[in-house]
Amino acid sequence: MNSNNPATMPAAVSPAPTISTPPDAAWLDAVAWDAQGLVPVIAQDAVSGEVLMFAWMNRESFFLTVAEGRAVYWSRSRSRLWRKGEESGHVQWIKEIRLDCDHDVVLLKVEQVSGMACHTGRKSCFFQRLEAGVWQVVDPVIKAPEDIYK
Amino acid sequence: MNSNNPATMPAAVSPAPTISTPPDAAWLDAVAWDAQGLVPVIAQDAVSGEVLMFAWMNRESFFLTVAEGRAVYWSRSRSRLWRKGEESGHVQWIKEIRLDCDHDVVLLKVEQVSGMACHTGRKSCFFQRLEAGVWQVVDPVIKAPEDIYK
Repeated sequence: MNSNNPATMPAAVSPAPTISTPPDAAWLDAVAWDAQGLVPVIAQDAVSGEVLMFAWMNRESFFLTVAEGRAVYWSRSRSRLWRKGEESGHVQWIKEIRLDCDHDVVLLKVEQVSGMACHTGRKSCFFQRLEAGVWQVVDPVIKAPEDIYK
Repeated sequence: MNSNNPATMPAAVSPAPTISTPPDAAWLDAVAWDAQGLVPVIAQDAVSGEVLMFAWMNRESFFLTVAEGRAVYWSRSRSRLWRKGEESGHVQWIKEIRLDCDHDVVLLKVEQVSGMACHTGRKSCFFQRLEAGVWQVVDPVIKAPEDIYK
């Protein structure tokens, strides 16, 4: 079996084409992009309210997030679009999108596929808690990273 | 009555002295500060789970947040420490502090005095929701700003 056959790949994790021209839309113009053309994004579990992770979007990734109904971030470290779950399958389906009072922070309410947002195999990236002056890991690993990224 | 008399001012909103030397602490060293010496901070209501606001901290403000048990941010626009609630009285008491997997984002779980985090007099700063391509204001003003900042 050809493992590169698109028909055998789950739709949620298949790569999608990027767009070359920043899309024209009033709701995108309303965002106060920073000097790098980015906006900070908070992803929150739409049901539990748990804050899952924090990332960045540029204009194109925000457009694609809305167009595809899933979180598409801009990876600053890799300088490329990052469809959340493209490798892990841990897609974030968009339930609601909010913008703050200054128009410079986005809040996504998402359905987190697998219940794991963190690359460490935890539900949330915020698994370290400050306790008496020490950062303690307080949340369990649900699935080992080596079993997520094969 | 002298309105500047410290004895007549609520303790929660009285200005506190700043510290001139960045405090030395391992838990502060563990934070991956950005090129400007800042870290993004998400404030979440400790009870309801609602995401209230987003701001930044430098080393000193993070130290003071822990030392004083209330959210102290670094105001990038004013280039100074910003004790949340210093003008409005809408202090954020710290219930829990978390750090993400990359050590570069902080999550505060807070008790929000007055229930209003936003300078517009709303509970949360994220009161605009994207609906059919339009940002709609969906949350009510609890108290008019002119009645908050007198």
